[in-house]
Amino acid sequence: MLTRIDHIGIACFDLDTTVEFYRATYGFEVFHTEVNEEQGVREAMLRINGTDDGGASYLQLLEPVREDSPVGKWLAKNGEGVHHIAFGTADVDGDADAIRDKGVRVLYDEPRTGSMGSRITFLHPKDCHGVLTELVTAAGSSPDGSAEH
Amino acid sequence: MLTRIDHIGIACFDLDTTVEFYRATYGFEVFHTEVNEEQGVREAMLRINGTDDGGASYLQLLEPVREDSPVGKWLAKNGEGVHHIAFGTADVDGDADAIRDKGVRVLYDEPRTGSMGSRITFLHPKDCHGVLTELVTAAGSSPDGSAEH
Repeated sequence: MLTRIDHIGIACFDLDTTVEFYRATYGFEVFHTEVNEEQGVREAMLRINGTDDGGASYLQLLEPVREDSPVGKWLAKNGEGVHHIAFGTADVDGDADAIRDKGVRVLYDEPRTGSMGSRITFLHPKDCHGVLTELVTAAGSSPDGSAEH
Repeated sequence: MLTRIDHIGIACFDLDTTVEFYRATYGFEVFHTEVNEEQGVREAMLRINGTDDGGASYLQLLEPVREDSPVGKWLAKNGEGVHHIAFGTADVDGDADAIRDKGVRVLYDEPRTGSMGSRITFLHPKDCHGVLTELVTAAGSSPDGSAEH
């Protein structure tokens, strides 16, 4: 069951400049940074609020580390902006299977590693009214619904 | 101070079809619907989670009621997808003024009426790394930080 807006993924050309925009304009601070080589991105997570399922909602700022990464190609076509949205669940495997059974294309056969040790998958935007949609289970969450953040 | 992701605004061609997609795929239910004539949209709010500032995070599904509305023009150019993101604050007036003073263009001189009696304004996407950004104070919130939801 999807229980929160986990994050909004925003593609940018220069991570440091964009992080500084969000800090200077709104006071949002960096909670975590990492490079995800598989996704081909350098990213910063800005924690905005806690959520009533025991998790949190973030902005995820994404700079491609190579032009042929999905985010790199998306940026070249669209310019900076919202790249995807992500819903949090305690059971990304079960939810992805259930959604696949409804005829929505799930982009990975098995969840992969996302921000902060999470497990993630994506749904095809053409099956989701134009919205690239991610499902994410935070590290430390378990399918019985408990979350450790 | 911006204290939550209030909503993600998603533009769609047909509100009823899109509402049904979100219900059938994820189990998200409609919390509120309305027509905002000033914004030129028919909309449905799907409540996803509560937030630790006493508010909540929603998906806001938006169907234009006229082609020359901002959302109608955006849809004609971009197709369905994420139209804007919104941050919640107890003081949209004060935050908009402070952000304007930093050189970011605020689209309204004074906040206007948004979903569920809220007061809203927008920041120019070209000043926000490509993201049309809304600031929203929920009905019943007050600038001292208390919220009544």
